[in-house]
Amino acid sequence: MSELATTVAALARRVQALEDELAIHRLIVRYGLAVDTGDAERTASVFTPDGVYDADVRYMNGRAEVADMVRGERHQKMVGHCAHQIGPAVVEIDGDRAVALGYSRVYLEAHGTIGVYRVSLNRWELERRGGSWLIVRRVTRLLGHEEAKTIFADGLADV
Amino acid sequence: MSELATTVAALARRVQALEDELAIHRLIVRYGLAVDTGDAERTASVFTPDGVYDADVRYMNGRAEVADMVRGERHQKMVGHCAHQIGPAVVEIDGDRAVALGYSRVYLEAHGTIGVYRVSLNRWELERRGGSWLIVRRVTRLLGHEEAKTIFADGLADV
Amino acid sequence: MSELATTVAALARRVQALEDELAIHRLIVRYGLAVDTGDAERTASVFTPDGVYDADVRYMNGRAEVADMVRGERHQKMVGHCAHQIGPAVVEIDGDRAVALGYSRVYLEAHGTIGVYRVSLNRWELERRGGSWLIVRRVTRLLGHEEAKTIFADGLADV
Repeated sequence: MSELATTVAALARRVQALEDELAIHRLIVRYGLAVDTGDAERTASVFTPDGVYDADVRYMNGRAEVADMVRGERHQKMVGHCAHQIGPAVVEIDGDRAVALGYSRVYLEAHGTIGVYRVSLNRWELERRGGSWLIVRRVTRLLGHEEAKTIFADGLADV
Repeated sequence: MSELATTVAALARRVQALEDELAIHRLIVRYGLAVDTGDAERTASVFTPDGVYDADVRYMNGRAEVADMVRGERHQKMVGHCAHQIGPAVVEIDGDRAVALGYSRVYLEAHGTIGVYRVSLNRWELERRGGSWLIVRRVTRLLGHEEAKTIFADGLADV
Repeated sequence: MSELATTVAALARRVQALEDELAIHRLIVRYGLAVDTGDAERTASVFTPDGVYDADVRYMNGRAEVADMVRGERHQKMVGHCAHQIGPAVVEIDGDRAVALGYSRVYLEAHGTIGVYRVSLNRWELERRGGSWLIVRRVTRLLGHEEAKTIFADGLADV
């Protein structure tokens, strides 16, 4: 391979890494937009079919259980009144796998007043499947939860 | 064109797409910095000259009306006490046009206490004009507003 | 140099600029993850060895003083109960130096209730040292602080 071809190949890998990082930010943020719209399919689709959403309030195993949560009466009553805002997060990519560590907040409106309903710490494990990044596992713990302290600890060395 | 030249041309398009995405994030965030500084020109300049800022509290048609809002007594009294924080948002680019969907918050300080004043849902329509991205239309609805539910619905299929 | 080689060299500079921008976002966000974990070394390591963290509540000169703050009883009692969330921010890069302007928030949990403890305005001055971006100076002022108004004013023309 010529010197220029080698340079171009290295550049292509760097561009891929940038695309991956932005794609992962977009993916984890999109969860919020989908769940706030009450769209069960789109919410579930940010996970792999066998993806796990391990939240302190509920452990969801697979897309069907995530979709069930969105379709549930409890969540549907919040649609139009809740805002799930994800980030900031730090993403670390290793080939077709990645880890992201970061925050999320849920705001809730009731009778014209908006409050901070939840502030959480998150760890996302992601995989590239069929060319697209998806969440394999998301662990979410409310700030102050006994396990919140350790959410970042494992991954922090890598990011 | 040689194979290498084709690869480089494809790479250039991918780099352009990454630059566009970051430029749009920067642009929508910069609105907040400018409005919090009380700088009418810089705030208005994130919009196209004929840009529309359709907020629930006020409909602003063109840069002059955005600048008027910033220069107004109501806003100037808030300068130094308000923080307009934009995002997270998801950006979808299609050539020289783009759509962004996301959140914004306004924090307000009064007598040493800081509160969440507004949490809103936003849809930005953007265009590249003369090489720079500008906001053609921003629709903002307060969380809980009757129309907040539909802000994301149209664009969510695309992002 | 051939025309193609010139194109590739220009592309490499653009990729570098994108990498720099994402690296700086990651760096300033990582401060929050490290400080919330109570990890003094990792928190201090986002600054240059002689870096300054000029916060309204405390002026820290050099990594040792940042680490001292993290190790202090006041902060360690907050670990597991505080969430330091950085951004949104706008980054402007000029070779091996950069300026970022943006917001930060601290949430605090006490007895199961989560509140907004601080909302601040920030200016980061950064340098690339040994190939990595580090914070040379971070100025943080609480929203409503007399100096908060001017934090963005200097840098806004550049970003």
